[in-house]
Amino acid sequence: MKKVAVIMGSDSDLPVVKKCIDQLKAFDIPYEAHVISAHRTPAQAEKFASSAAANGFGVIIAAAGKAAHLGGVLAAYTPLPVIGIPIKSSTMDGLDSLLSMVQMPSGIPVATVAIDGAQNAAILAAQMLALSDDALAEKLVAFKADMEAGVLKKDAALQETLAQ
Amino acid sequence: MKKVAVIMGSDSDLPVVKKCIDQLKAFDIPYEAHVISAHRTPAQAEKFASSAAANGFGVIIAAAGKAAHLGGVLAAYTPLPVIGIPIKSSTMDGLDSLLSMVQMPSGIPVATVAIDGAQNAAILAAQMLALSDDALAEKLVAFKADMEAGVLKKDAALQETLAQ
Amino acid sequence: MKKVAVIMGSDSDLPVVKKCIDQLKAFDIPYEAHVISAHRTPAQAEKFASSAAANGFGVIIAAAGKAAHLGGVLAAYTPLPVIGIPIKSSTMDGLDSLLSMVQMPSGIPVATVAIDGAQNAAILAAQMLALSDDALAEKLVAFKADMEAGVLKKDAALQETLAQ
Amino acid sequence: MKKVAVIMGSDSDLPVVKKCIDQLKAFDIPYEAHVISAHRTPAQAEKFASSAAANGFGVIIAAAGKAAHLGGVLAAYTPLPVIGIPIKSSTMDGLDSLLSMVQMPSGIPVATVAIDGAQNAAILAAQMLALSDDALAEKLVAFKADMEAGVLKKDAALQETLAQ
Amino acid sequence: MKKVAVIMGSDSDLPVVKKCIDQLKAFDIPYEAHVISAHRTPAQAEKFASSAAANGFGVIIAAAGKAAHLGGVLAAYTPLPVIGIPIKSSTMDGLDSLLSMVQMPSGIPVATVAIDGAQNAAILAAQMLALSDDALAEKLVAFKADMEAGVLKKDAALQETLAQ
Amino acid sequence: MKKVAVIMGSDSDLPVVKKCIDQLKAFDIPYEAHVISAHRTPAQAEKFASSAAANGFGVIIAAAGKAAHLGGVLAAYTPLPVIGIPIKSSTMDGLDSLLSMVQMPSGIPVATVAIDGAQNAAILAAQMLALSDDALAEKLVAFKADMEAGVLKKDAALQETLAQ
Amino acid sequence: MKKVAVIMGSDSDLPVVKKCIDQLKAFDIPYEAHVISAHRTPAQAEKFASSAAANGFGVIIAAAGKAAHLGGVLAAYTPLPVIGIPIKSSTMDGLDSLLSMVQMPSGIPVATVAIDGAQNAAILAAQMLALSDDALAEKLVAFKADMEAGVLKKDAALQETLAQ
Amino acid sequence: MKKVAVIMGSDSDLPVVKKCIDQLKAFDIPYEAHVISAHRTPAQAEKFASSAAANGFGVIIAAAGKAAHLGGVLAAYTPLPVIGIPIKSSTMDGLDSLLSMVQMPSGIPVATVAIDGAQNAAILAAQMLALSDDALAEKLVAFKADMEAGVLKKDAALQETLAQ
Repeated sequence: MKKVAVIMGSDSDLPVVKKCIDQLKAFDIPYEAHVISAHRTPAQAEKFASSAAANGFGVIIAAAGKAAHLGGVLAAYTPLPVIGIPIKSSTMDGLDSLLSMVQMPSGIPVATVAIDGAQNAAILAAQMLALSDDALAEKLVAFKADMEAGVLKKDAALQETLAQ
Repeated sequence: MKKVAVIMGSDSDLPVVKKCIDQLKAFDIPYEAHVISAHRTPAQAEKFASSAAANGFGVIIAAAGKAAHLGGVLAAYTPLPVIGIPIKSSTMDGLDSLLSMVQMPSGIPVATVAIDGAQNAAILAAQMLALSDDALAEKLVAFKADMEAGVLKKDAALQETLAQ
Repeated sequence: MKKVAVIMGSDSDLPVVKKCIDQLKAFDIPYEAHVISAHRTPAQAEKFASSAAANGFGVIIAAAGKAAHLGGVLAAYTPLPVIGIPIKSSTMDGLDSLLSMVQMPSGIPVATVAIDGAQNAAILAAQMLALSDDALAEKLVAFKADMEAGVLKKDAALQETLAQ
Repeated sequence: MKKVAVIMGSDSDLPVVKKCIDQLKAFDIPYEAHVISAHRTPAQAEKFASSAAANGFGVIIAAAGKAAHLGGVLAAYTPLPVIGIPIKSSTMDGLDSLLSMVQMPSGIPVATVAIDGAQNAAILAAQMLALSDDALAEKLVAFKADMEAGVLKKDAALQETLAQ
Repeated sequence: MKKVAVIMGSDSDLPVVKKCIDQLKAFDIPYEAHVISAHRTPAQAEKFASSAAANGFGVIIAAAGKAAHLGGVLAAYTPLPVIGIPIKSSTMDGLDSLLSMVQMPSGIPVATVAIDGAQNAAILAAQMLALSDDALAEKLVAFKADMEAGVLKKDAALQETLAQ
Repeated sequence: MKKVAVIMGSDSDLPVVKKCIDQLKAFDIPYEAHVISAHRTPAQAEKFASSAAANGFGVIIAAAGKAAHLGGVLAAYTPLPVIGIPIKSSTMDGLDSLLSMVQMPSGIPVATVAIDGAQNAAILAAQMLALSDDALAEKLVAFKADMEAGVLKKDAALQETLAQ
Repeated sequence: MKKVAVIMGSDSDLPVVKKCIDQLKAFDIPYEAHVISAHRTPAQAEKFASSAAANGFGVIIAAAGKAAHLGGVLAAYTPLPVIGIPIKSSTMDGLDSLLSMVQMPSGIPVATVAIDGAQNAAILAAQMLALSDDALAEKLVAFKADMEAGVLKKDAALQETLAQ
Repeated sequence: MKKVAVIMGSDSDLPVVKKCIDQLKAFDIPYEAHVISAHRTPAQAEKFASSAAANGFGVIIAAAGKAAHLGGVLAAYTPLPVIGIPIKSSTMDGLDSLLSMVQMPSGIPVATVAIDGAQNAAILAAQMLALSDDALAEKLVAFKADMEAGVLKKDAALQETLAQ
């Protein structure tokens, strides 16, 4: 299976990005995680993205905050799909990160998920890889069923709470 | 090759969505386009999404404006990746559509592109399908090269303009 | 009397939704509360909404955060009035929930109250039911009189505080 | 049947409010429409709202722009449900009107619909009245079926357009 | 001297409004403070505002949060100048209060100060009253001089801190 | 009577500011209007504001767009009340002007009216001057009565329109 | 004198950027203008920025819209000061461009001017170069004097207009 | 070397501004720091800015919150480049400060950095001064290399963490 790259702009993003990594592991998807800054290590960003396809990656996930250029910079150097996780920082409640990621010009998309939506980035990557991987596709179907069961259980618990 | 579904919430979205369809055609990606409203034809939305994988679709693109639930509603019924195009409507400059699409809860991602970013939705779908389609992957590489050449040409033209 | 359905998208919404339930109880309005997710349990959402009128419900209250599709999804399947409570989540201060709920397209309204405005959702449901229930209408008149008296009392208390 | 009051803060709101009136007519719901300003004719606002229930009204719809206090002012004087239509004005794209209407304090709800969502205000009023009026409830069911049929027709038309 | 009325929509606004009252006291301006809700005690609001001029008030200060109609409602019933203090509440960071207060329609101004800007409301009231009160005008000149001296002192303190 | 100064940051603001001047004329309030830029003619701004009280002005109205510092700069140099009109410019729909004007720090208020709310600035100035001018106070009462009559007339006209 | 580079992300930005070029010419500052896209021609961006200092440039001006990464991408590759002009595009009124440019992480500043503030970018570049160029510094002093004279003239013209 | 002036509108801004001062020290750039308020000490602001060039300053950094006029006011009185640091205050998450600083009218730029971006203001000042100071230019190159090394080290540390 192709690998997923999880790139974060700063190691301070790890607490959020952790949920992405955990979900990839739960799906048994091979991954590599790196701290690469679009602005502080631009040469690394270029090198990583330019060679990502050749190095066995299928999807790149980029997590960054504030003027979150990381997704766009990686996407500029690779034809692979790039998923963006806008990270909420200390000001602007994540709106700056969201707009910096999602408002990409024509030609270079970044598939943006919710602010701090790290788990969803992993699920989205899994959905992409599952297009040619039936075992993974089945895992996604099972994942959806589990979620559904979880909500039904919470509803049952609510009925008990309310009945007391 | 798996097909791409292009679903728009209203036929008034077609002028924007047209660029998505045109780009899919340019990549020779098989597609179907439909008007399905999450709110006016919920049964259609459910039926389409539930059977999309079985019907040969690989990716679903959803375009909608205002309280743009279409992407989320389709994603609820399918394990396929769903791409969202937030459509700018007559008020709020597209912010309502963007937030309604991108801020999905954990478990159900919608891969959101820019407001009115219809061409990018097609490119993103192509990137997903290209993960298991080398010919399409090559088209994407060529597309990037063409874009680069186009900008270089525009820069050359600018030099001439400025030199006058 | 027709029942009121209080549907929350996640059990994490309960602390806010509690004020809605308490107010319904204070008005002696029969209700049922459920956790139903528009995205994780779409079939439940459809089933509940489609049969709500037949099952004796008169009004549906939907509480959800982020890309808050719950109100719209329920409204799509029922001709009953649907009241939306946008829940403030960890980012965007509730603006995403508000816009996702209130900006519904023509044909499918969601009667939206303030962000986290759970008590008002109950009062609004009571006002709707009171259109054909004189006893409830009288309770609403009394409720308004109580509120007025409460403010007058607080003003009197303020005069004492300031006089010290 | 109880009447619906359609109150607009200024006669310049009529082009938008017209869609509300037309929908009420289409449902054969008796209505009165008035220009009453919360700020310029506060005594009229008080008089109208205070006596609305006694005068045979069941629902009040209030349309206003900018600092849109009309809904709240009317709701302060009546136990009837009040529906708010935030009108987009020349600045702020309707956000000011929306927040001024929807963010009501506990105790006094205004059931807010989308910015310029005049038709939905009428449908919501119909849903409220239909709680005790089976004929109107049937009209709402038919209205939903018509909308569904309309979208299916537009989808069919799209297929023809795309096939050309 | 004419009195200043300090009206707050809820006694929960008192911690902010306290700074307004303290500043009025510091200027020896006679005042009354009241809790009057535009929505819960509309009759009180009308009564107070309608008779304010006759009762010896010169300026009305209104503090309210969320859909902050209080300033507009009082202004509707009096020709006196009304100053609005938008109070920050639990969501939207005060933007809802600000827009609800400041975006008044033509004919009925509310002189709006900063979000939670209670002290400035008192200073503004003093500036209005000082137009016909030379002693108060002198106090305002002295107040400005004191502020200037305070900043110069803080700059001197900073120099010491930096020199260490 | 003390004069009102109407200061605009640019002569391009005149079409909006015109409504302010017209209303001052309608109230027979003596005024002077000037183009003074806080940034391009700071010495003029200082000179005008510093000597405004001595030169017979009672109120200063400042109209400016974008980073609208004019109100704050004038207020820094005078103890007179300063009214701010945030002018909508080509971007940001007036939000930049509004926040730049209204969010003044403690000690230096700017009495802000609605975006482009030029007429209200004049009315507010009149209300301030009327505190010590009974003839002007009566004009304000008459102005309110005229507005009320105007709305009643528009409501009557609406009834005729709807009856046709 | 060191040259100024004026880089625009798309030739569609030229109508705005023109004012920047014209102002540089007016100051007799040598410049080069180029179309370089951070996303479509990332290699060009890197090459240009990496060698800019060696190629005789002193300041880089970057103009871009939407997810405006251009300033940050160029700044990543050069120690020269980079000035950002956020370009207003078809949605979001320039807020996306502004936040994408200005919210740069620690270590890599982009000196951001107003949305569409092209002339100011040129003036800022001139101010930087004038730190070691007395002739240019004198031009800036003259430019300020001219602006001041221009406003005084407009004020004089206003007096004539008002006197008629 | 020319000095850098670091002006803060209030001593409460010092905790943020400290990072600016520390970075200037790290670059061995001579500086002076002052508390000067555009509104409370306008004469100081004028005096400082008017004489800054003559007093050996090359760059002025202005830090302020809310209606952050300080940068514009200083820029009005000096031809030197002015850098603005928008300070996040208790409401509006810094958006008010940002727009008040960055949206300067044509002719008077303020080079704005991120909200609370104090370190970047110092780096930007260094970049300006380095245009004519090769030693400082080398420090900036070294600073960039250090940042790059720092990120590479964090990436290495991440690999160890993930390997555990």
